[in-house]
Amino acid sequence: MRSHYCGQLNETLVDQTVTLCGWVHRRRDHGGVIFLDMRDRDGIAQVVVDPDTAEAFANADRARSEYVLRIQGRIRLRPEGTQNPNMPTGMIEVLAKEVEVLNTAATPPFQLDEHGKVGEEVRLKHRYIDLRRPEMIDKLRLRSRISHNVRAFLEEQGFLDIETPILTRATPEGARDYLVPSRTHPGSFFALPQSPQLFKQLLMVSGFDRYYQIAKCFRDEDLRADRQPEFTQIDIEASFVEEEDIMGITEAMIRQLFQEVLDVELPAFPRMPYAEAMSRFGSDKPDLRIPLELTDVDDLMKDVDFKVFSGPANADDGRVAALKVTGGASLSRKEIDEYTKFVGIYGARGLAWIKVNERAKGLEGLQSPIVKFMEGVVEELLDRVGAEDGDIIFFGADKARIVNEALGALRVRLGEDLDLYTAEWSPLWVVDFPMFEEDGNARLQALHHPFTAPSCDVETLKSHPAGALSRAYDMVLNGTELGGGSIRIHDHAMQQTVLEVLGIDQQEAREKFGFLLDALQYGAPPHGGLAFGLDRLVMLMSGAKTIREVIAFPKTQSAACLLTEAPGEVSSEQLKELNIRLRQKAKAETAGE
Amino acid sequence: MRSHYCGQLNETLVDQTVTLCGWVHRRRDHGGVIFLDMRDRDGIAQVVVDPDTAEAFANADRARSEYVLRIQGRIRLRPEGTQNPNMPTGMIEVLAKEVEVLNTAATPPFQLDEHGKVGEEVRLKHRYIDLRRPEMIDKLRLRSRISHNVRAFLEEQGFLDIETPILTRATPEGARDYLVPSRTHPGSFFALPQSPQLFKQLLMVSGFDRYYQIAKCFRDEDLRADRQPEFTQIDIEASFVEEEDIMGITEAMIRQLFQEVLDVELPAFPRMPYAEAMSRFGSDKPDLRIPLELTDVDDLMKDVDFKVFSGPANADDGRVAALKVTGGASLSRKEIDEYTKFVGIYGARGLAWIKVNERAKGLEGLQSPIVKFMEGVVEELLDRVGAEDGDIIFFGADKARIVNEALGALRVRLGEDLDLYTAEWSPLWVVDFPMFEEDGNARLQALHHPFTAPSCDVETLKSHPAGALSRAYDMVLNGTELGGGSIRIHDHAMQQTVLEVLGIDQQEAREKFGFLLDALQYGAPPHGGLAFGLDRLVMLMSGAKTIREVIAFPKTQSAACLLTEAPGEVSSEQLKELNIRLRQKAKAETAGE
Repeated sequence: MRSHYCGQLNETLVDQTVTLCGWVHRRRDHGGVIFLDMRDRDGIAQVVVDPDTAEAFANADRARSEYVLRIQGRIRLRPEGTQNPNMPTGMIEVLAKEVEVLNTAATPPFQLDEHGKVGEEVRLKHRYIDLRRPEMIDKLRLRSRISHNVRAFLEEQGFLDIETPILTRATPEGARDYLVPSRTHPGSFFALPQSPQLFKQLLMVSGFDRYYQIAKCFRDEDLRADRQPEFTQIDIEASFVEEEDIMGITEAMIRQLFQEVLDVELPAFPRMPYAEAMSRFGSDKPDLRIPLELTDVDDLMKDVDFKVFSGPANADDGRVAALKVTGGASLSRKEIDEYTKFVGIYGARGLAWIKVNERAKGLEGLQSPIVKFMEGVVEELLDRVGAEDGDIIFFGADKARIVNEALGALRVRLGEDLDLYTAEWSPLWVVDFPMFEEDGNARLQALHHPFTAPSCDVETLKSHPAGALSRAYDMVLNGTELGGGSIRIHDHAMQQTVLEVLGIDQQEAREKFGFLLDALQYGAPPHGGLAFGLDRLVMLMSGAKTIREVIAFPKTQSAACLLTEAPGEVSSEQLKELNIRLRQKAKAETAGE
Repeated sequence: MRSHYCGQLNETLVDQTVTLCGWVHRRRDHGGVIFLDMRDRDGIAQVVVDPDTAEAFANADRARSEYVLRIQGRIRLRPEGTQNPNMPTGMIEVLAKEVEVLNTAATPPFQLDEHGKVGEEVRLKHRYIDLRRPEMIDKLRLRSRISHNVRAFLEEQGFLDIETPILTRATPEGARDYLVPSRTHPGSFFALPQSPQLFKQLLMVSGFDRYYQIAKCFRDEDLRADRQPEFTQIDIEASFVEEEDIMGITEAMIRQLFQEVLDVELPAFPRMPYAEAMSRFGSDKPDLRIPLELTDVDDLMKDVDFKVFSGPANADDGRVAALKVTGGASLSRKEIDEYTKFVGIYGARGLAWIKVNERAKGLEGLQSPIVKFMEGVVEELLDRVGAEDGDIIFFGADKARIVNEALGALRVRLGEDLDLYTAEWSPLWVVDFPMFEEDGNARLQALHHPFTAPSCDVETLKSHPAGALSRAYDMVLNGTELGGGSIRIHDHAMQQTVLEVLGIDQQEAREKFGFLLDALQYGAPPHGGLAFGLDRLVMLMSGAKTIREVIAFPKTQSAACLLTEAPGEVSSEQLKELNIRLRQKAKAETAGE
C-alpha cells in the first residue's frame, strides 16, 4: 500500500512519486491550502494538499487529528524560508495527488503533543494512543534491537535458545508465586516461574552446554516504585565453566550491545568485593560515577563522649562512617535538614555533620553540632577523610545495615543534587558475596539462592557457614544491578550441606526441588550462569524514567492493567470447573484503584 | 575448561593435544586398556586410556556410565581395522594423558541406548536424562535454529519484536482460559492468553506497523493426542496490508526457513478455496502428497433404490462422495473391514465399495455389495471417477460433515498404508473460508475469530451472513495446518455488525473486549496477520512423532509435568492470601495419573 515510510523521505527523492500511509499528526489550513503532518513509525512528513486536486482536497478537508490516510504525491523541496532543518524530512514536502481516508478517528482523549497534561492513568487506559508518541515507539524499537543484538551475540557464541515452561511447580521462593488452578487435577495448582533457574540447571545436566532464553518471569509482590509482576530476563547458563568464563562472555555481550546499539564504548569493568562495596559505598550496587566514598571511623569513635557514636562504634553489628563532600560546606541549614529527613527514610535517627570552614584554625575553623564531643580525634578524622576547607563531612552511626543504606542513599542523592557525575557510564562487577545473611531470627538465609556454590569446601562450610563466600557475581551499571549470577553447586553432597545450613530439612527439600537433587546424582557437570533484567537494561539504555515506558502494556503499581481492566471478575461456573470458590466476594473496586 | 567439543574432532587434528569435557557414553575394557566413548552435545569421541598413564588410568577405571570427565590427550589415527566410517569422529581416537572425574553418576534409570525399552513416563520423569540422547539434543537444537532463522527473516523485513502480557484479561474464547487469582485485587483473576490477538491489533492501532513475537500461549483444554497446555506461536501482524502481502511475506519466510535449515527447496504454494478443499479432499488442510481425491456423486445417487445413498443425496446437508484408489482392488476383505472400522471413528455408519476387476465385462466385471442398487448409473459413475481395472472405489454417504471427515481421514490413512506419497513436501494456502459456521443450535459462530474481516461489505453481511466469506488464509503443509491468519476488521461499524451476527450483545462485547472496540474508533489502520504453531513446525521439520519430542519440558496428556510433579498442592495460607478456598479437598492422585 505504501512506497516509503514518512521518515524516509528526503531531498534525494525530489520529483519522485511516493505513497504514504499513516496518521494525521497535525493539520493546518493556510492560504487556502491544507498542510498535513503525516506520521508513521519512522517519522513525520509534511503533505501539501492544493484545492486544484479537488477530490484529494475534499478528503484532506474531512481529515482530523489521528485520521488514517493514504496519500500519493510528488516530493518537492520546500520553498525557501519554510524549511525546517531540525526535522529529518524538513527540507521537503509531498504535494498530494490523491488522498484516501482509510479510517476516521474520534477525538483522542489527549493530544500526543500534550500527553504531559494528562496523568499516567489516562495514558495507560488509552495505551494504544500513548504508544503513538514517537518517543514510545522509539523506546520499544530500541528494546527490539537490544533483544536482537543479545540473541545474535549469544547464538554466535554457541548458546541455544531453549524454552522452559511457564506452567510449573511452586519454587523455593514460593511465597511470591502466582498460582494457577488446574482443571484436570482438581485441588492442584501450577505456579508461574520466578525464574527458569531449576530448568536451566537441568538443561546443563542434560548436556546442552550453553543455554539462553529471553524468558518471562513472574513475581507476585508488593510492587515497589519500579517493578512489574511480569518481567523479562535474559537468562544464560553454561557448563564446564568458572566465574571468569561467564563474566567474560556476558561482559563482552554488554560491551558490544552498547557499542552497536548506542555507539558507546563502555570503560573497563572493575571487580570489587562485596565487602569493599559496602564499606566504601554502603551498597552492593555502587554508582561509581559519583566520586563520594564512605570512610570507616569506628576506631576513632570508640571512646568519644557521645553515645550516638560510641555505642555503634563498640557494637558488633554497628558502624560509624563518614561521608566527605568536597565543597559541601556551602550547603544551607535547610538543605542539611532536608538530607536529615531523607536518611530518616532508611531508618537513620539523625545526620551529624561537620563543616570545614578553615582547617588551619583548628576547632575554631569547624562548624558542627557534634565536634565538641570528639575534640581528641577530630584532627585524625579530618586527615583520614582528607578534609579541606569548604568541605562538609556527614556521619552515619547505627547498625551497619542502617548506616550503609542511609549513607549509601545519601551519597547517590548528593551525586544527583550537586551533579557530581564524572562519567556517563560506569560498570563494575561485584564479587565475593557472602553465602548467607542472617534473618531477624539469627537463622541463615541464602543471599542469592540455595543453588549458588560456595568458594570453600564442604568441611569449611559446615564449620564456619556464616563466614562463607559464594561464587556469585553481579554486574552493576550506574548504580543499577543489571544482572546477577553464580557458579552453581554441581555436587550432591555440597547441595545437601547448603540445605542443612539453611535449615531446610530433607522432606522440605524433596517437596520443593527433589527433581533437582535427583538430577545432581546422575552426572551433573560444573555449571554456572547469569540472568539480566531486560526491562531495566532497556530502561537504562533508553534513558526512560520508569520501567513502564519500556513495556508495551505495563501494569500499574497495584498490578493492574488499566487498558484491559485485568484482573477482572470471572463467572462462578468457571471457578466451579477449577474446584475453587472465593473466600469472600470481591469488594467493589476498580482494577486501577 | 575444554578445547574442543567431542563431535568436532577429526583427522585434521592428528597429533594435537585436546581437552574434552563430557559424559561417559560407553566404557569398554579391552586388552588391559580402557576405551571411553565420551559424549557431549556435538557428538561422541573415542578415548583410549593406557595403564602407562597411571593416574589417568586409575580415574578412568573408576568411571562408570554417565560420569562427567575432563580428559586431556593427543589425537591419533585409529589403527587400521578399528576405524568406524559411520561416525564423524570414527577415524581418530584420543590417547588420554589426564583423566579428571568432575562428577560421579548413579546408575541411570535407563541406558540412553535402551530408551525404547522404558515407557515414556519413565523418560518424562527423568527428562534430564532422556534429553541426553543425541536425537533429543538435535531436535531442540533444530528448534533453536528455526527460531533464530524466523527472527532473522522477520527483522530483516522490518518487523519489531514486541512482548505482550502473559497476565491479562479473560479473552472471548474464555472457557478454556487458565486463570490466575490476584493477590492485590481479591476476588479478581488474570487469564493467561490463548493468543496475543487483541494486543497485536492494538499495536497496529498504535502504529508499530510490523510486529512479531515468538509468544507463549495457553489453552486449558482436554488434551488431544498432540496438544500441550502451553504452546508457542510465531505471531505476526502488519498494517496497511492485504491478503497478498501477509501471504507473500510468510510464504517467503517458510520457504527460506526450509532452504536454510533443511536445505529443502519447497515447491510452489498453490491457492485452494476452502470449498474446493472440502469437496476434493474432505479437509481444510489437505495432504496434497497423496494422489487420491473425493468425487461428488450426489446427482447420480438421488434416485437409486438404496436409501443409504439416496437419502443423503437428496438432503440439504447431505453428501455422497466416491474415493477411487488406483490398484485398490487387491485390498483384502479383512483390510476393507479394518477401514470400515476406521471410518466409524468419524461417525460413518459403513463403508460401501466397488472393486473394478474388469470394466470391459460391465456389471459382471465389478465386485461389490451395493452395485446391484445402482445399475442404471454405474457406468457414468465409473467414468466420472476414471475407474480402471484393478481399482477400488469407496463411498461415503451421510451428512456432509461426516462424509468429509470420514473419507478425508480414510484418504490419508490409505496414503500411509499404501505409501502413495508423490512428494516429500507439499504446501498450499487454503483461502476463501466461510465467515461463520452453524453451531448445533442454528446459531452462527465465527469460524476463525470475531475480528476476522469478511470479504463483503456491511450491508451484504447483514443480509446474507451465512454465505459470507472471510479474508482468512491458512498455510498447510503435508496435511498439517502450519499457521492461520486473516485481514482483520479495522472499521468500527463492521466490527459491530459481526458481533451482532454472532449474537454478542453490546454489554457482553464491552465486557470482553471493550478496549479493542474503543481502539477501533481512534484511527485503526487496515491490518492483518498470521500465527504459526512453532511446536508443530519444528515437529514437521525434525520428523518427530509427537509434539513432546520438540519441547524441552513437556506436559503429559493430562496436563501434568512428571519431572517436577506440577501441578501440586499448595498451603492453605497461600490460598487464603489469594482469597480463595478449595471447593473440595484434592483427591488422592498422582500428578501423572
